[in-house]
Amino acid sequence: MTMMRLLFIFALAIFTIDNVSGQEKRSDMAKFTLVIHGGAGTILKKNMTAEKELAYRDKLKEALSAGYGILSKGGSSIDAVEAAIIIMEDSPLFNAGKGAVFTSEGKNEMDASIMDGKTLEAGSVAMVNTIKNPISAARAVMEQSPHVMMVGEGAVKFAKEQNLEIVDSSYFYDEKRYQQWQDFKGSIGTQMDHSDERADNTTEQINAEFNEPVDEKFGTVGAVAIDVNGNIAAGTSTGGMTNKMYGRVGDSPIIGAGTYANNKTCGVSSTGHGEYFMRAVVAYDISAIMEHKGVSLQEAADEVIHNKLIKLGGSGGIISVDSEGNFALTFNTEGMYRGSIREDGVPSVSIYKD
Amino acid sequence: MTMMRLLFIFALAIFTIDNVSGQEKRSDMAKFTLVIHGGAGTILKKNMTAEKELAYRDKLKEALSAGYGILSKGGSSIDAVEAAIIIMEDSPLFNAGKGAVFTSEGKNEMDASIMDGKTLEAGSVAMVNTIKNPISAARAVMEQSPHVMMVGEGAVKFAKEQNLEIVDSSYFYDEKRYQQWQDFKGSIGTQMDHSDERADNTTEQINAEFNEPVDEKFGTVGAVAIDVNGNIAAGTSTGGMTNKMYGRVGDSPIIGAGTYANNKTCGVSSTGHGEYFMRAVVAYDISAIMEHKGVSLQEAADEVIHNKLIKLGGSGGIISVDSEGNFALTFNTEGMYRGSIREDGVPSVSIYKD
Repeated sequence: MTMMRLLFIFALAIFTIDNVSGQEKRSDMAKFTLVIHGGAGTILKKNMTAEKELAYRDKLKEALSAGYGILSKGGSSIDAVEAAIIIMEDSPLFNAGKGAVFTSEGKNEMDASIMDGKTLEAGSVAMVNTIKNPISAARAVMEQSPHVMMVGEGAVKFAKEQNLEIVDSSYFYDEKRYQQWQDFKGSIGTQMDHSDERADNTTEQINAEFNEPVDEKFGTVGAVAIDVNGNIAAGTSTGGMTNKMYGRVGDSPIIGAGTYANNKTCGVSSTGHGEYFMRAVVAYDISAIMEHKGVSLQEAADEVIHNKLIKLGGSGGIISVDSEGNFALTFNTEGMYRGSIREDGVPSVSIYKD
Repeated sequence: MTMMRLLFIFALAIFTIDNVSGQEKRSDMAKFTLVIHGGAGTILKKNMTAEKELAYRDKLKEALSAGYGILSKGGSSIDAVEAAIIIMEDSPLFNAGKGAVFTSEGKNEMDASIMDGKTLEAGSVAMVNTIKNPISAARAVMEQSPHVMMVGEGAVKFAKEQNLEIVDSSYFYDEKRYQQWQDFKGSIGTQMDHSDERADNTTEQINAEFNEPVDEKFGTVGAVAIDVNGNIAAGTSTGGMTNKMYGRVGDSPIIGAGTYANNKTCGVSSTGHGEYFMRAVVAYDISAIMEHKGVSLQEAADEVIHNKLIKLGGSGGIISVDSEGNFALTFNTEGMYRGSIREDGVPSVSIYKD
């Protein structure tokens, strides 16, 4: 028994030292991680011009840089996530904020959500049209309202009360997105049947049929970060699917599907065919697998994106960061606009499969 | 080795017989289970009249009977869940359909969702106002649209196209609910601060302060069933919280929070303070804990409702059925309107803590 006790005390001491030094290490080195995405889909090099590719890479780097500026000064992961997403919302390159796609009625309807992994507080907006930065409205819902989700006119009214920037709906108008909707609208009978067809067709077939880049259907943006204090945050923002039915809401504003963050496990932001992500509760599932099974973030992400989601028929990807600052950028599509940056300040940006 | 092989074959035979007989048993005995809830909250016997209690008990039995009629004839769990919920939506006793509470702008905004555990297909509507039975609209979204979630005007338009019954908004008017809103509205400054206060106060305090039954704040309805074919379905319908902000959406239409069903694990319908159920992804978490940890439904439900949710500060409950037909009716409030029925046709109905 005495031997056992000694062994136990020894083990406890090792465990304690290890934990303390682990924490100190993070603090001393001011470690942090930020990852972002600009959507997953059939992104093929053959459909991309050098100019367009450069534009995407530059904008992703700009978003990483915005978040890095905050995290490197000891700022919070929530601030970094919001800042990175705002850069992408303000760019017509992505299907969020300016550049959002058109619904079947020719409107823009945007959704966004954000979650704080320290408090498990969350906020989201859906079907908003005149809020310049939906991610900031989601944050206001989280921090300034007793609610988690606000939708439509009520959400816009709340955003106005919070003095968020409201713009005319023409602000979101993007010639390319509008033309894309016109092409789409002109080539179909009823939208619903067609959406079904598109979901069933391969993206290659659709691409050939409509002579347009199919990747435009995706293009949701998101960011996940862990700050120097070990707090994780995640956020997602989208304009939804081109020609979606009026009133359709996808996974981006849904806590557990599009966005999830928990300091104990990880933060996740999803992008892809939202209906499948909602049915599979993708973002929370990655956290739950880590928590319940004790596997790594990459193993959990692979299980959800490359196994469970594929079995269900869903395409897309996620970006995620765990409590140690490890990250996973995992997708089952041809490509995902993505990037990462750590305390060394060197941005890494990728588009296609490795 | 030969001995080992024999043992292995013997074990395989036992396993096979056991499995086959298990399935046959279900089929032969036509086993099924239906559970329902009419909301959880501070439901105290001292605040209840004998007449009111009888009305609730009778209506819960009527809902169980509607589902039983379908399941006992070999009907599907989806049909039974919808039928049971319609009975409760049509009754002003519950905060769903007729009898839904009023928002801070004096409107009714209803939400509902449904999920099929066999296919993992799901449908939901949120912020709808003139659809007589929101649960049927959720089912139509699941079965007749390519989407999972539809919100507001778009959802109502879709319901009309699906020939669902549309009623004048006066249909939902209930004198008691309206008076409740008037009392609430009259006694507060800004609704938002007040909602926060209410959330922080104990329900007893609020009850004393406003001299109204606090349980009315809850009252979401739901049903979960497993049919003779072993298919699980779950559904939830609500009018939300009294005096909620215009545009607030709670957990009821959120797949993973308010509703989840998976033949592999269980079906769940939630009721309570929705914001906490969304942040904790309650319905899916019970399924995930069963799947990942291999524990029983009751253990998973206890872990989520009596441990994780309480740590977060959330009150409410869930009803759930697992793939063996076991059920759990678990809540951390003073009471939950609830009932169950199995193949013997004897309904069981309860209101308070045991």
